[in-house]
Parts: sequence; structure tokens; C-alpha cells
Amino acid sequence: MNVIYVDNNATTRVAPEVFDEMIPYFSEFYGNPSSMHTFGGNVGRKIREAREKVATILGAAPEEIVFTSCGTESDSTAIRAAVLSNPDKKHIITTRVEHPAVKNLGEYFSKNGFRVTFVPVDRKGRLDIDYLYENLTDDTAIVSIMWANNESGTIFPIEELSKTVKERGIVFHTDAVQAIGKIPIDVSKTGVDMLSLSGHKLHGPKGIGVLYIRKGTKFSPYIIGGHQESGRRGGTENVASIIGIGKACELAMEHLGKENTRVKKLRDKLETEILKRIPNTIINGDPENRLPNTTSIAFEYVEGESILLMMDEFGICASSGSACTSGSLEPSHVLRAMGVPFTAAHGSIRFSLSIYNTEEEIDFIIEKLPPIIERLREMSPFWDDKVIGNR
Amino acid sequence: MNVIYVDNNATTRVAPEVFDEMIPYFSEFYGNPSSMHTFGGNVGRKIREAREKVATILGAAPEEIVFTSCGTESDSTAIRAAVLSNPDKKHIITTRVEHPAVKNLGEYFSKNGFRVTFVPVDRKGRLDIDYLYENLTDDTAIVSIMWANNESGTIFPIEELSKTVKERGIVFHTDAVQAIGKIPIDVSKTGVDMLSLSGHKLHGPKGIGVLYIRKGTKFSPYIIGGHQESGRRGGTENVASIIGIGKACELAMEHLGKENTRVKKLRDKLETEILKRIPNTIINGDPENRLPNTTSIAFEYVEGESILLMMDEFGICASSGSACTSGSLEPSHVLRAMGVPFTAAHGSIRFSLSIYNTEEEIDFIIEKLPPIIERLREMSPFWDDKVIGNR
Repeated sequence: MNVIYVDNNATTRVAPEVFDEMIPYFSEFYGNPSSMHTFGGNVGRKIREAREKVATILGAAPEEIVFTSCGTESDSTAIRAAVLSNPDKKHIITTRVEHPAVKNLGEYFSKNGFRVTFVPVDRKGRLDIDYLYENLTDDTAIVSIMWANNESGTIFPIEELSKTVKERGIVFHTDAVQAIGKIPIDVSKTGVDMLSLSGHKLHGPKGIGVLYIRKGTKFSPYIIGGHQESGRRGGTENVASIIGIGKACELAMEHLGKENTRVKKLRDKLETEILKRIPNTIINGDPENRLPNTTSIAFEYVEGESILLMMDEFGICASSGSACTSGSLEPSHVLRAMGVPFTAAHGSIRFSLSIYNTEEEIDFIIEKLPPIIERLREMSPFWDDKVIGNR
Repeated sequence: MNVIYVDNNATTRVAPEVFDEMIPYFSEFYGNPSSMHTFGGNVGRKIREAREKVATILGAAPEEIVFTSCGTESDSTAIRAAVLSNPDKKHIITTRVEHPAVKNLGEYFSKNGFRVTFVPVDRKGRLDIDYLYENLTDDTAIVSIMWANNESGTIFPIEELSKTVKERGIVFHTDAVQAIGKIPIDVSKTGVDMLSLSGHKLHGPKGIGVLYIRKGTKFSPYIIGGHQESGRRGGTENVASIIGIGKACELAMEHLGKENTRVKKLRDKLETEILKRIPNTIINGDPENRLPNTTSIAFEYVEGESILLMMDEFGICASSGSACTSGSLEPSHVLRAMGVPFTAAHGSIRFSLSIYNTEEEIDFIIEKLPPIIERLREMSPFWDDKVIGNR
């Protein structure tokens, strides 16, 4: 069966061009870049090239780039570094809609002597900026706000937020895992001190992340060990994956236009047609400021998991929330924070597209989805035909 | 130029059989194992298989295996988990010859409110076991001792040590990164509570590690985030590399005999011939209890880095110490701890073989090395012909 993969906010296909560049660094040029011999040294040169490519997509300098093992490690490293560098400050600000990497770490800190403010969002997933500003204090060690939400696709005004926070002398971190490659990012135009990336969300490999650390930012390493990454992250460099994320960043820059034209057009078609063909559907997220590849749609009075299972039979791969929170029967914390009604949150499906999706695939989903929803609603005890048109 | 790679304690070639198993999981079956759809779920099944393979080589249960990003992360996770789980205990015991992953973390703790005991070793790199036992106190949170040393190859009696430490109710961790695949390991016969592995030291990929956590061991995650690894390590699973380390463990079990016959024989030949042909050479390490692939040889009155550079011209890749401490002009902390005289420590070279080395390669090194040492000694201000035979 053909796979129609519209779950690109969960993970992406490694671009063939990326994998091609990685291949020689497994069994052929496998040296340790820290070694004294040429065989290892040559690998070090490739790592420098990758670092430059990552720096370029961010508008950063290569020495501001630290390779980590994933976005989660980058988030942890950033937040803990800010806390360790400001031992007198016991307040952290983040949002109610962060990825578990930041949300669960925030909850951990709140149980361990810190006051943690979780800034709320509105029905479209937009941040309550006044609430954020009102809560900045001299005790605030760090503000960590994602650049774009993985579920709703809503984009936060990071340029503005980071500048204001920075003016107050507070460290600003952003999890840009979902934003990179989908919208333009230039840290030099922001007040961002630290920024997290993940390889596997932009057609690079899994198991590799990046932490951008602005020059001059107080830092202490999280994974302590060897001298790697200029003493900022121990452990033998994940050579092939570093080369992979470098190439993925290069490709992402080339494809940024396509994301915002072709991919956006496909997303818009999918969304428009679903809303047109299926009653009682609601878009979760901000239509004005939203990732071009993402739509989260609530199908009222149906279970999201049932929709996923029935789509799966046609090879359609989507998700009901973050892959990192799946397995739980609770509706997503993001949709709850947005105030999506219970009956709609439970039936919300996220479609997240990529440059590999075709118009034929979108047409296939548009064709298959209405009867799925209709069948599920017929089985639902909460569904009543009269509901239609009454909202 | 042909590469003669005898630096396998720094990193290893990914076995072609390992890479073959990884290939489909980059661009073809790239789903997120946490996803609800079959495309992701199938990947989850492969991860379970890999977990079983890793468990098998250790004599552990699959649920005792946690995948991390590297040996360094595993070490950090283990030691910090023990410290967090025993908040009243402020004493850590380790050795003077650990890998930087443990050594530097120990130094970090010693500056942050902990007393850290570094157990000394003798001239052959053997642990002062009485010193270790005398220093166990009710305040000791964890004892972390490597299974085999990466530079000298000396093997520590982990079965005995771990049982004695465990009888005292103290957590025992071992960094087995260099031991696995070279000597038999069966945690069920030990008192080891936690054990670290690294993929790239046993012909698996870089960027993947394992932490074995014995059932019932108090644990708290180090990388906090999603629900992955049963809540013990956040971050999207590094699928291809997990599959890779699983296959590498399977192969390592098959090759264990070869390591201890063919590889050992080649190592012994290299060592014997170098000692025979080159005067003023000393073996660093314990000839009785030593990894079968490793020899560290001190060439008195020469600089190790010069030897490496001249060998490099013939494509011979070896090292002067740990790759993770290279770049420093200081002689290795391991050789210093062993009391290797300054003039010998500076000229020490580690040769570490693998199943991919051939007898022809060993013969080539035996042929090329004597004139290199002779030439360097002629240039050395410390060298005097009369030294020969006077020791």
C-alpha cells in the first residue's frame, strides 16, 4: 500500500541528498575527528563545513553552533545553563503550549525550588503577550518560548518578544524545531540568546540537534566529558549525522520558497476542501500567523484515534497531537490550553505536509476523509444529525 | 594511500552488516515510532528487536536497556541519577584513570559540594582495591569504575568489586564502553546496577549509547522530555542508530571468540616484535588482565605526537592517548596515574586493533616503526646511544 505521509511535524523523510552525503562516514571515513591522524582530521574538516551551513540558515556565526543529540537535549541544555549561570534567580517563564521537552522540564523545575510561569494562549493559540511582560521580574532566569507550535502551527512573534525580554537583561531561549525551514529565521535580527533545532524535523536524520548560543551568553555544559564542541558538549561527534544536518539546513534554505508557495497551497487546498465537505469542523490555530505546512482540524463528536486508525487503512499517516505525547488518552495539552472544547479537542487531527507531498495525495485524502468522518459520527453516541447547521 | 587503522579504541568502522540494516530507516521507513499509524508503529517493532539484542549481549532484560546518545551521556545519566536518588549522600568514588566522561564529571561534583575519591592504580594500571574498600562510607552515593581502561587496556575485576560495593548498599556503575565485544560481560553475575555502552566502539554508529539500569535501581531521567524509553530518556528515538547498535551487539557476540584468538594473536605479534626490534620500549598496562586488542607502548625519549605524524605518512592510524583528551600537550592522565616516567609517558603510543586488521598490516607496522623511532631519537636532545642496555 502507498504511504501518504502528512505527519511531517512528527518526523520527516531524510532527504536523499542528505543521506547521500552521510553514507561515506559510516564504514569508509569512520575516523574520530579528535584523532591526530589525517584519517580522523579529514572528518573534522567536514564537521566544520556542516557547522558553517547550520550557522548560515540561522544568520549566526559557526562558533555559536553546538551539536547535540536532539531538540530535547538542546532545550534542556539551554534552560539548565541559564539557571546554573544565574544561581540567585529562581523564576522561569515559558508557555502553556510548549513541546514536552520544555513543558516537562518546566514542571520539573516547579517541583524543585523554582517558580515557573506558563503564559496562556487564546483560542487561536496566540500568546498573551501582556501576561508575559507583566510577569518579567528581576528574579527571572530565563524566558523560553517556542518559535512555532508543533500542533496548531501558530507562529509566535519571537523577534519582538526576544528583544523586549533581552532589554530587561533576561536570557531568551526559543525552541525553533518546528519553525526552521518553514519560515525565515535570522537570529541577528532578534534578541534570542539560545535556540534549539532538531535534524529530523527538516529532512535530516534523527538523533542530531543543534543549540545556537549567542556569543557572550553565559553557558555551562550539560553533557560533561571530553573537549568536543569547544568544551560545550562532551561525547564523540556524531559525524555522519552532523554532516546530515548541515546538508539538511542547506537544502531547507533552498526549499524555503517552495514551502511557502507549493506546500502552503496544498495545505490550503486540503483545509478548504475538508471544511467545505465535512460539517462541524473547526480549524485550531491562527490562520494569520501559521506554519505553511500545518493544519490542525477538529472534527466534532468523533475520536481522533478512530479517525487515525481508519485513515491508516488507506495508508494516510497523520496524528492527533504531538508524537511525543501520544499514547495518552488525554486530549493534547496544547488544544486544552487553547480552550478547544472537549468534544472538538478529542477529535482533532493534525496534518503536516512537506515538499514531498503531491497534489494527488491531497486529493486522495480529500476523497477518503468525508466518508470516514460520516461513518464514525454515525457510530458516535454524541452525534445527532440536527447538530449540523446549528452551530 | 592505504589506511592501516589501529585506533579502534578511539572509534571503529561501522560493520557493513550493521550499516546495511540501518539504510532503510533514513529515507524509506522514516516514521516516528511514537506515531499512531502503522508506518510509525513498524519502526517501533524494530526498536524492540534492537533492545532485545543489546539485552542479550549483557545478560540483561530488554526493559533494563535505555538508549542514549553516547557513552558520555550514559555515564552522566547514571552518576547524576544515583546522586539525585540519594540526596543525603555527598560522596562519590571513582578512579584516577576513568574516561573524561566520568573523570571530568567527578571533578565537577568535587567543586559542587561533593567529596570525590579517585582510587589510584599501580604501574600496570591495576586498581588499589583495598583503597577503594577502605573509602566506602555510609555517605557514598555511587561507585563508578570502568570495566576496562581505554588507554592501557587493563581490565578491572568488576564482578568482585560490584558485589562487594553492592553488599554495602551502594549503587555501582561501570563504564563498559571499551570492554563490550572484547571480553564476556554478564551483568547477571555481577552487582552492577548501571552500565554504559557506546555504539561506535563496537562497529556500530557514532551518536548512540546504552544505559543498562538494573530492575529496581532508583532512577531519575537526565534528558527530560517526551515519554520515550518508558519515560527514562526524552527525545525522538534515533531509530537507524538504535537498529545499528542492536546489530553491532549481535555481531560482537559472534566475534567475541575471534577477538580473543585472531585479534589477540595479531596484537601479541605487534607487541613482541616492537619490543624485540626497538630498544627502550616499555609496555604500559597489565599483561595478565588486558583487553585482547590493545597495547600501549612507551618509546622512551621521543615525543608521541612526532611518532604519530611519521606513522601517519605511511597511513598508520594510532593514538597517543584517548581521542577525547587529545589536543592537550600534557601526557595522558591515565599514564600519569600509572606512574609512567615523564620521558616514557610522552612517547607512549596506543595501538588498538579490530577484527578488520590483517597480518599484512601488522607486518607493515613492524617494518615501518623501527626506523621512525630511530630517526626521532637521533633528533632528540634527551637520547644518548649509551642509554641502550643501561636500563
